[in-house]
Parts: sequence; C-alpha cells; structure tokens
Amino acid sequence: MKIIMAEHAGFCFGVKRAVDAIENALKNSKEVWTIGLPIHNPQEVARLENLGLRVANDESEIPTGAEVLIRAHGEPLDVIERLQARDVKVQDMTCPFVKKAQELAAQMSKEDYHVVLLGDKNHPEIKGILGHVANNSNAEVVANEDEAEKISRHSKIALISQTTQREERLANVAGILTRKSSQLHVCNTICKATGERQDAVRELVTAHDVDGVVLIGGRASANTGKLRDIIKAHNIEVLWIEDENEIESNLDWFKNKNTIGIAAGASTPAWLIDKIKQQVGVRS
Amino acid sequence: MKIIMAEHAGFCFGVKRAVDAIENALKNSKEVWTIGLPIHNPQEVARLENLGLRVANDESEIPTGAEVLIRAHGEPLDVIERLQARDVKVQDMTCPFVKKAQELAAQMSKEDYHVVLLGDKNHPEIKGILGHVANNSNAEVVANEDEAEKISRHSKIALISQTTQREERLANVAGILTRKSSQLHVCNTICKATGERQDAVRELVTAHDVDGVVLIGGRASANTGKLRDIIKAHNIEVLWIEDENEIESNLDWFKNKNTIGIAAGASTPAWLIDKIKQQVGVRS
Repeated sequence: MKIIMAEHAGFCFGVKRAVDAIENALKNSKEVWTIGLPIHNPQEVARLENLGLRVANDESEIPTGAEVLIRAHGEPLDVIERLQARDVKVQDMTCPFVKKAQELAAQMSKEDYHVVLLGDKNHPEIKGILGHVANNSNAEVVANEDEAEKISRHSKIALISQTTQREERLANVAGILTRKSSQLHVCNTICKATGERQDAVRELVTAHDVDGVVLIGGRASANTGKLRDIIKAHNIEVLWIEDENEIESNLDWFKNKNTIGIAAGASTPAWLIDKIKQQVGVRS
Repeated sequence: MKIIMAEHAGFCFGVKRAVDAIENALKNSKEVWTIGLPIHNPQEVARLENLGLRVANDESEIPTGAEVLIRAHGEPLDVIERLQARDVKVQDMTCPFVKKAQELAAQMSKEDYHVVLLGDKNHPEIKGILGHVANNSNAEVVANEDEAEKISRHSKIALISQTTQREERLANVAGILTRKSSQLHVCNTICKATGERQDAVRELVTAHDVDGVVLIGGRASANTGKLRDIIKAHNIEVLWIEDENEIESNLDWFKNKNTIGIAAGASTPAWLIDKIKQQVGVRS
C-alpha cells in the first residue's frame, strides 16, 4: 500500500491565525467566547473547549462584558456593532481574505453596484459578507451557474466570491453576468490557500495513479466539499472522514486499493492529519 | 422560392448618423474629408464621393484648413489633436457606443487597470479605442479566447469590447480573465444594434426552415463577419455578397434552395438591401 499526501493540506493561514488567537487569549482569560464553531472541525473545537473556549449559538448568548473572538468566517457588521454597544470585548479574527470580500461588498454597494455573492447562502462567511453590503442596496446570493442565469439585468453588477469557491465556477458565473450588465466588476476573492489545496488535489488525482483519496475535513466545511467535487470530477473514489475513528468503520473501502491519496480541508489541524495518515498506513 | 428577411438588418444608428452628417456637410461645403472609408460599404462610399466626399488614406493627406468628419469607428485621441492643431475643422461623428468604449478605456487606464480590448487589432474602431488609453499604461488587444489565455496576471484588469463583438465570446473571455486578476472590470460595450442584428440572424436560421442565407455587407465589415459566424454555427449555407452583381455570378448557389433568408450588416444601406432582395426574387 502506497500513501501519497497532497502537497498542500490542512490549516490555512486564516484558520491558524484565529486558532492561535484563541489559544493566546485563553492564556490570560479563564474563558473566551466565539459565536458558532470557530472552525468546522469538531476534534479541534473539543481541544479548544478543554482550554476554556465557550461556543455561543448566537450573539444573544454572549454575556455582557465577556471576551469574544470573531472567527475567521467573519460576522455581519451589525452583530459586531451590537456586541460593542453592550461592552463585549471584541477581538476580530476575520480572515484577511474574507475581510477583503466584506470591504469590497461595502464599497461596491456604495458605488451603486447590484451586489451578487457567489457561495452558499447558509454559510456564515456569506452571511457575514452580506452583512457588509450598504443599506438600501439589493444584494443576492447565487450558489451556481443555474441560479446566476436567473439574475435580472442591472446596468452595474459586482460579483464577489466566497473565499472557498471553485475558480471554474466563478469564471462561469462571470461569463453569465457579462451578458446581464453594461459594467460587471468581478472580485476574485477566492483565497490563495483554497486555490493551492484545490490544485494539490487535482495534482494528486491526475499526476499519480491513486485508487482512491481519503479526504479529511468537517462535514460542514465548504472548502472540503469543493475538494471532494474535484476528486469526483476525475472519477476517483473519495472517503470523506472527520476523524481517525471513521477509518475503522470503512475498512471495506480500502480493499483492493494499492495507492491511496490523502488530502485535507483548510480547517483540519496538522495533528489530526498525522494521526489519520498513521492509521491508514496500519489499516491498509 | 420563398424569401425571408431578417427582422433587423442594415444601417445601425451610428452609421446612419455619420452618413447623414456627411450629406448635410456637403450641402454647405464643396468637399468634406474622412480619414479612411466612412463605412465598410463600397457602393455607399461611391454614392457619397459623387456628392463631394474625399477619402484620405491617413491624416497627413488632409489639407490644412479642410473640413474633416470623424467616421463612426472613431479615431485615436492624438489624431484629432493633431488635426485641430493645424486648423482642420473637425466634426466628430464617432458612434456614441464607440465613444463610450473610448471613455471607459481612458477612465480604466487612469485608475491603473491593465486594459484588455477584445476585438480585431487591425480594425479602426480598436485602433481608436486603444488611442484613448492613458499614457504609460499598458494595453493589449485579444481576438479570441486562445489569445486571452496568454494574458499574464495583473491585479486589476479592465476588459473592453469592440462594439461589434459576439456576446458569447466576450462572456468566455470574461471567464478566462477572472482567473488572471483579483479585480476584473468587464465593460460590455457591445452595441444594441449589433446584438439585435445577431439575434435576428439567429432567429432567421432557427425559427424558419431556410436552406441558405444571402448576407449583404462589405468584405471589411466586422459586424457582418460575426453574422456569418452565427449562420455557419447553425450549419446553414451563407452567400456573403457586397452588391447585386454578385447574385449573377453565384446562380449555382441558389439551385435546389426553396427558402432563402436575407440578412445585412450594420453598414449596408437600405437601398442596396432592397435592390438585392428584388434581384434574388427574380433570379431564384
């Protein structure tokens, strides 16, 4: 059994920065809050909760005067303003790439562009970006090319992407919206780490003769989902797992596979990748 | 033999405006100059020359103090400035849609965008738009998707289209350049008349059971070339002619054809379309 690791896998810069900030904050405070899971990885969240992290379901659960760390996905502007208004200490760890998308959403809407976001309307990152569009402006979220085709004509459209989007899809949607506007401003806000992980997975399934790919990442991780799409598009089998225990319950998957690739989404910590790599080596 | 006319055919607004201006100017002056042919239609140019039009090959042939009419295609900024500097009376009949593309080229280059023009680098319209890009800026012209793929990465790219471009191609190139920039500003400067003529030709070859299309337009007419591409893409035979005499020399083409469509580019005068329609009716 041969194991080939994707060249780029696991924690991206923005996630590492937010997790480090939580750990640092917990050196000085007994408890630090986040709104929602700080990253889409249950194992890493459990580790942080052991250090003193408290995860609120929404802003209302944050006690007045508490310390809140805005996760890498970001938050709508009004959420941060309301927290600050009731003396919550806010440390903004929004990923700089997401921040850029938020700033562009604000700027474009102020310049009277009709803002179109490409991404998942239920994902916190998209909700956060949407929450930076200037008041009284229309903005809409499209998930794919079909939904983009339904957008009506506007003289000025700004297209902004969720940072974990596939570049092929952004390019297709840009083509579609070109026909629906006199001026289309495309903000390619897909982050470098996302592209690198996607390229690494593409390289894994094309340059190497792998029989399947073990993909590590939280079920809710958008960027991991995109990696799965790329692997499947090359007709290679994927085993998407969250932790090492899932290896045990999927031993059948490994049968008759000689070469296995391992890839991981941007929210997967290095220690988990190592653990799973070891487990795959033993089990297969 | 049945003849079906394309719903929109012949002179567009910009060409009609320029030709009317030449005729009006010749009511008050013995001679009026244009730089290059005022429109890509030899028959119409011959008619205007009979009224007193003089066609110069380039600006140097224009006598000092003469009256020059800038054709619908437009001219680079420095050409107009040099003419005015030597007391040539300039009447600018640049098509308002082309003017808009020129203004956007100037504005985008001043805002530090790398300007990419989609069109034919030898066409006067593209030369004119290129001549409005601000000094010291780089700008390049691409003819198609393959050439767009070769553009190198720039943080800000502005894509501006020749007004007679096919929208499909502009959309494809916008998709390609999305991957080559952080911010892509697409100016959909394709004019309405071009779109209407393209849609009308598409309707002609899809909604009607035509066995072939007679396409009228000057050999150098960019927009007529695009109409030919659309007809061919639907596997329908095209007979591209400039004048009624070409009917005689292509009688074979009409054999075994029961239904014939007639379409015409934006530089074809109505009187020529009528003449050819009559000729096709007699000959087939």
